[in-house]
Amino acid sequence: MNIPSSDLPRIVVIGAGFAGLQVAKKVDTSRYQLILLDKNNYHLFQPLLYQVSSSGLEPDSIAYPIRKVLRQQKNTHYRLASVKHIDTSTSQITTDIGRLTYDKLVIATGANNNFFGIESVAQNALTMKSLTDGLNIRSKLLGNYEKALNTTDKEAKLSLMRIVIVGGGPTGVELAGALAELNNIILPKDFPDLDLSMTQIHLVEAAPRILSSMTAQSSKKATQALEKLGVSVYTNMEVKDYQNNIATTNTDTIFRTDTLIWAAGVKGQFPEGIDKNRVGKGNRIVADGYCRVKGYTDVYVLGDACLIETDKYPKGLPMLAAVAMQQGKYLAQLFNDQSKQKQTQPFEYLDKGSMATIGRNKAVVETKGLKFSGITAWFVWMSVHLVLLIGFRNRLVVLINWIWNYVRYNNGLRLIVRPYKKQKQID
Amino acid sequence: MNIPSSDLPRIVVIGAGFAGLQVAKKVDTSRYQLILLDKNNYHLFQPLLYQVSSSGLEPDSIAYPIRKVLRQQKNTHYRLASVKHIDTSTSQITTDIGRLTYDKLVIATGANNNFFGIESVAQNALTMKSLTDGLNIRSKLLGNYEKALNTTDKEAKLSLMRIVIVGGGPTGVELAGALAELNNIILPKDFPDLDLSMTQIHLVEAAPRILSSMTAQSSKKATQALEKLGVSVYTNMEVKDYQNNIATTNTDTIFRTDTLIWAAGVKGQFPEGIDKNRVGKGNRIVADGYCRVKGYTDVYVLGDACLIETDKYPKGLPMLAAVAMQQGKYLAQLFNDQSKQKQTQPFEYLDKGSMATIGRNKAVVETKGLKFSGITAWFVWMSVHLVLLIGFRNRLVVLINWIWNYVRYNNGLRLIVRPYKKQKQID
Repeated sequence: MNIPSSDLPRIVVIGAGFAGLQVAKKVDTSRYQLILLDKNNYHLFQPLLYQVSSSGLEPDSIAYPIRKVLRQQKNTHYRLASVKHIDTSTSQITTDIGRLTYDKLVIATGANNNFFGIESVAQNALTMKSLTDGLNIRSKLLGNYEKALNTTDKEAKLSLMRIVIVGGGPTGVELAGALAELNNIILPKDFPDLDLSMTQIHLVEAAPRILSSMTAQSSKKATQALEKLGVSVYTNMEVKDYQNNIATTNTDTIFRTDTLIWAAGVKGQFPEGIDKNRVGKGNRIVADGYCRVKGYTDVYVLGDACLIETDKYPKGLPMLAAVAMQQGKYLAQLFNDQSKQKQTQPFEYLDKGSMATIGRNKAVVETKGLKFSGITAWFVWMSVHLVLLIGFRNRLVVLINWIWNYVRYNNGLRLIVRPYKKQKQID
Repeated sequence: MNIPSSDLPRIVVIGAGFAGLQVAKKVDTSRYQLILLDKNNYHLFQPLLYQVSSSGLEPDSIAYPIRKVLRQQKNTHYRLASVKHIDTSTSQITTDIGRLTYDKLVIATGANNNFFGIESVAQNALTMKSLTDGLNIRSKLLGNYEKALNTTDKEAKLSLMRIVIVGGGPTGVELAGALAELNNIILPKDFPDLDLSMTQIHLVEAAPRILSSMTAQSSKKATQALEKLGVSVYTNMEVKDYQNNIATTNTDTIFRTDTLIWAAGVKGQFPEGIDKNRVGKGNRIVADGYCRVKGYTDVYVLGDACLIETDKYPKGLPMLAAVAMQQGKYLAQLFNDQSKQKQTQPFEYLDKGSMATIGRNKAVVETKGLKFSGITAWFVWMSVHLVLLIGFRNRLVVLINWIWNYVRYNNGLRLIVRPYKKQKQID
């Protein structure tokens, strides 16, 4: 790889998600040369991806060019690259644009969909991880309404207008709420010829309740809010197979649907080359308290790809943006301390709470003993997301879109920029 | 096709461009049922497509959902459909979603690229007609800068950083100016490791001067402005072949380039079924003074697909948005008059002038004897385009983007939302 030479030790960060970007921004580059690699040229604000799927926001509102973020920093080099292999014995990685040696390696490659071995779902379901995924869902949904308009066969029409979302975590809940509002409020104006009361939105969760990482009270509030919007919520239900537009479950319930969106689980993803014995639950790499991969001295892992088991979190820290960001900041500090031979305390996750939104004016928020829902929670949700979105222009555009949507009650533009095409998940 | 039945005579409009959309908006739908068909679900503001290619604007700023435009209108039905065939003997069209009969048919299908029979260019060049085209150019250009950064071979690097734009009409001129500014002002901040002075932008025009539809004075001003930005302008030069990254011309000049953008010509496009004897110059359908296809009583043609030869325009009216919009309004009026047995005068094109912009602060404007250039022209250019962009939200977003770009001198977001993929032109 063509990188300017430097006498400084080289930190290579794989992945410009919440964790990797923090490392790149916070490392003292008068003491290190920093190389950031990502397969996209932008950072994606994944928590709002569901709004791209539901036509609420355009891609540019939730993506920000990596080069723009790093513009002010010296000794920092971004490259558009996919990492194929890590060779820890020679401290070298292999990418699609060449090889690169490292002094310290940071694996911040996040997570990908976990289909739990169900091949038919992997083949036929829509997913919600990348910007492409988000746009695919939008194109598919809007295209299906167009098709339904031209279908006289009732069963075929229902299959086009039935949406099954698998997974009742924040992603599934927020997407279900947004799609219900789109269907109830916006689309009737766009599709006066179509009976939109035929639309069915089903949210399927394997656990006994949705939002299972939050309290039972929040789960209940969220379920009520979703049902009020017309979403059918199923718990203790698992989708077992999905092909030829038929989804079967572990119960008698069968869904005939052209649109099954898989938001049921994720697993760590990372390049080849890490000792398989160091890979733990959820395909995450086991790290010590310093985010260092166990068994290695110069390889670190962060965020969704990282498994740190503590007394408080015996299954590992939750796969959340907040954890990733805190770990990224922590690791940068650790590297800066190392360069001064200073000691650093082990990483500790500060849980500031969690939240989910269910459409206009509705959200559930839990933070340090406080629990609230409704419009106040919605404003808290909106403010936190605005502050977290990097880049002033993005924030301004998102804010204008949101205010506009709120006043006019009319979510964004419903462009099918390209026809939906199912493509095998390769990233 | 599943269309609500109606006792009113049915007007079918194919194409929701500048012409078709005007017909759909202005026809009196208490007297007609109106069906609008388009292969996309949005209207594209093509004059600003080059700003999507140069990362200045996002797709949603120049595209607007057709359903949103037509929302208030009764007896008006839009369908997402590609028309395959017109059968004038039975007054019926065949589409990918079924058949449809018409009482009056309006062909407003615009134009597509004219490669003048050069198969290698058709296969390998980038084009500038659809939103997909615009995004493809952006992804390709930004991807090539990323590749150039990692290339040590000087010739390969130059091939990646050499852009050849074929066609010195408004599209080619505006794109060349926008790409030069992107390269000179914005990208050096994004690519500190890359020597951007290596970038070459070549604008190739077959005629003796660029902007040949404007006066010689405007051509000269535009040439000077482009050359000041670093664009090399060639006249009397035709690209004859383009393969394996080598473009040959009718002169000794040969370009080795990975990026050849074809903006050299367009030709009318329309579904099969119209008598071939009625197709004239530039593959446009010959119409009489009432925009009616010669030889037919109930088939009309508008805009780029329409050839009306007059004394003033012996080669037909120019292929401009202004002509298309005026014809669309005219035809709606003609139909409304027909429903009242009123006579309508033949169509007359009112030439309000023409203009082109060459980057920040520079434009050339010609209108009714007035000619001006520079910053005043640029403001005129900007105002006219803002007013023409349909939809308040679009206008607001474009305005904010432009003001922001002007103040910060920093064009938009440079997202490679999807990898560039060459696809055979099928639309």
